[in-house]
Amino acid sequence: MFKQIASKVHEVRPLIHCITNYVSANDCANVLLACGASPIMADDVHEVEEITASAQALVLNLGTPNESKFISMLKAGQKANNLGIPVIFDPVGIGASQFRKDLAKTLLKEVSFSVIRGNASEITTLATWQNHSSCIDTNALKRSSYDMLIELAKNLSEKLGSIIVISGEEDIISSPHITYRVFHGHPAMSTITGTGCMLTSLIGAYCGANPTQLLQATLAATLAMGLSGEQAYSKLCQIQGGTGSMHILLIDAISLLDFSKVEGGLNYELYEKLS
Amino acid sequence: MFKQIASKVHEVRPLIHCITNYVSANDCANVLLACGASPIMADDVHEVEEITASAQALVLNLGTPNESKFISMLKAGQKANNLGIPVIFDPVGIGASQFRKDLAKTLLKEVSFSVIRGNASEITTLATWQNHSSCIDTNALKRSSYDMLIELAKNLSEKLGSIIVISGEEDIISSPHITYRVFHGHPAMSTITGTGCMLTSLIGAYCGANPTQLLQATLAATLAMGLSGEQAYSKLCQIQGGTGSMHILLIDAISLLDFSKVEGGLNYELYEKLS
Amino acid sequence: MFKQIASKVHEVRPLIHCITNYVSANDCANVLLACGASPIMADDVHEVEEITASAQALVLNLGTPNESKFISMLKAGQKANNLGIPVIFDPVGIGASQFRKDLAKTLLKEVSFSVIRGNASEITTLATWQNHSSCIDTNALKRSSYDMLIELAKNLSEKLGSIIVISGEEDIISSPHITYRVFHGHPAMSTITGTGCMLTSLIGAYCGANPTQLLQATLAATLAMGLSGEQAYSKLCQIQGGTGSMHILLIDAISLLDFSKVEGGLNYELYEKLS
Repeated sequence: MFKQIASKVHEVRPLIHCITNYVSANDCANVLLACGASPIMADDVHEVEEITASAQALVLNLGTPNESKFISMLKAGQKANNLGIPVIFDPVGIGASQFRKDLAKTLLKEVSFSVIRGNASEITTLATWQNHSSCIDTNALKRSSYDMLIELAKNLSEKLGSIIVISGEEDIISSPHITYRVFHGHPAMSTITGTGCMLTSLIGAYCGANPTQLLQATLAATLAMGLSGEQAYSKLCQIQGGTGSMHILLIDAISLLDFSKVEGGLNYELYEKLS
Repeated sequence: MFKQIASKVHEVRPLIHCITNYVSANDCANVLLACGASPIMADDVHEVEEITASAQALVLNLGTPNESKFISMLKAGQKANNLGIPVIFDPVGIGASQFRKDLAKTLLKEVSFSVIRGNASEITTLATWQNHSSCIDTNALKRSSYDMLIELAKNLSEKLGSIIVISGEEDIISSPHITYRVFHGHPAMSTITGTGCMLTSLIGAYCGANPTQLLQATLAATLAMGLSGEQAYSKLCQIQGGTGSMHILLIDAISLLDFSKVEGGLNYELYEKLS
Repeated sequence: MFKQIASKVHEVRPLIHCITNYVSANDCANVLLACGASPIMADDVHEVEEITASAQALVLNLGTPNESKFISMLKAGQKANNLGIPVIFDPVGIGASQFRKDLAKTLLKEVSFSVIRGNASEITTLATWQNHSSCIDTNALKRSSYDMLIELAKNLSEKLGSIIVISGEEDIISSPHITYRVFHGHPAMSTITGTGCMLTSLIGAYCGANPTQLLQATLAATLAMGLSGEQAYSKLCQIQGGTGSMHILLIDAISLLDFSKVEGGLNYELYEKLS
């Protein structure tokens, strides 16, 4: 199934419209090309609706925000909603300022998102509107906290009608009724900037090419990123490289990923909460 | 001859002023340094004219456009025209929105360009003002279409007085009277973002260092990019890398290129249309 | 001592707020992660003060300037001053336009900087307000000029109350009373864009984690960059790579740097001017 979803990206070559930050824009474009999609970055209000209308998915990323980009996100998001195009939201560093929280609040009110992806602190901030860390990339969490996070993701998913992805040491993917846990990835991924943004773009590509199975597409993209991180780290050890090489090897792995050749199988599970 | 043109870049170390998009700005700066030029990225209206005045070439890139950057392009372009500094235009994704088409139309009216480079769909849009693809990086074209493209490039070159470069599987470089076809490059180049922008920057560097022979400089830059793509791909196969490595190897190859050591000779031709 | 200062970055994991250019933003974020710090790039006036307030250092970079980013720099800088957070300034390309000189003049008047880092021409422009090169990356200077530069750095440091770093073939680090010369680094570092910006970010990280010993932290960061450049170049020769690989290997080296394992010792000196 995952192989089919991933192959669909190469077949359909979906155009993914990204309104995003300038820090990871190049990486996101390269990740989209690596998985078979076609990126277009555009954030001016005069063109975003037209570009969204010709895209297969829209990715809104809250990094390096400003008001004019926000207006563009709003317009593009509403256009996508009207046309039934999947919209993916990445609340980058939402806990870092009241400004980001205000923008995110308005976006959630005015735009319906197919998928929202963040790390534990970002999604927790989105669910509670209280800060849980000023740090963007807090990933390590205690075991017990994961059960709470899963509940939070489920509840948020129900409330917003969006698939919620919390990425970290363990990834959580939740629709209102089904929750998956993914156990792939490697801590070295958090030593480079933009891995979260890259995963969000990947989800955009997978959803854009598979619009009728968004949950499976989101799960597949999350698995793809985790597997790519592992493969990148494994090569990194061979060449004894540092974080610069990890960056390149991660994009390499995304472009070389073949679900039918994953050794050791996929490590994820359907989560069933006793109730 | 090509060796001389390329060496001139290292000798002169031309300052290339780029008003460009944030997706490939880092790559363009690195490509300029790799070929021996010196990049300066600047897009604020308060400084672009002064910076253009001290540069040896100006590169205008339509990616991630907005109105204030457009005003800067206009002012910098006119300043360059007044001072006789070559101006290179890259109509990135011009077919993607009416906004980009409008900006490009005004630029073409107000600024005289030495060279315009795009892919087949971009240049066709520029010539006909009709969309030919919503996709920025459509490269594959049927054999017969190339003859039509060559005619289109020639006619556009005559109309605008600019050298027209259509890059793709086969590259077309046309002045009003002379047309070249270049058969270098590799499809793997289109698996990374910004290769078009990088070629445009390279043309800027070659033209900036060789302002009296713009057609030969443009041809040399196009050959340099194609050869670098081939050399990068050849190394990529050795290391069994993915698109992340292709990205790095391409910049490597540009920095290591030596026209006097190209094995197998240069594969390009002067195109003579029977008439 | 340097080992301790560098380790402190990994321990404290300081949040470094960068208001910076879009050309090297990705590299700066990756360098910050590579040395153990946590980057946040944010330049909108609605959030910069709040973000600076939660950061351990603020880095202001004059590349690709515009007025709204300038206002943000001013507000963030003053907030940092009020809270005693170190502020680092990189006057990128200050000689390139009157606009950049005006912005820098106002910043120097309104914000107190802990450290200012530039190349010889940038710092000379800052000291004399006359242009000394239109080229951003002029690095090669004659031996005799270094003595003049050291005097200039010392005087500027006294005048502004900031640590002055002039990076180049030889690096100069000067407080009003103490001046160091650092003899590490490699010319290949100037073949990639943003190495200056990366060093400035590194200084931000080291100062952010060691706020009570800013001069030693700045010296350590400069040594770290120089050593990393040498190690990167040494690996580059092994793989016979070009400037693309140099870029990656430099970030690798920063992430792998261990002051306790530097072969051949550190090559720097306390400069004593006879007087």
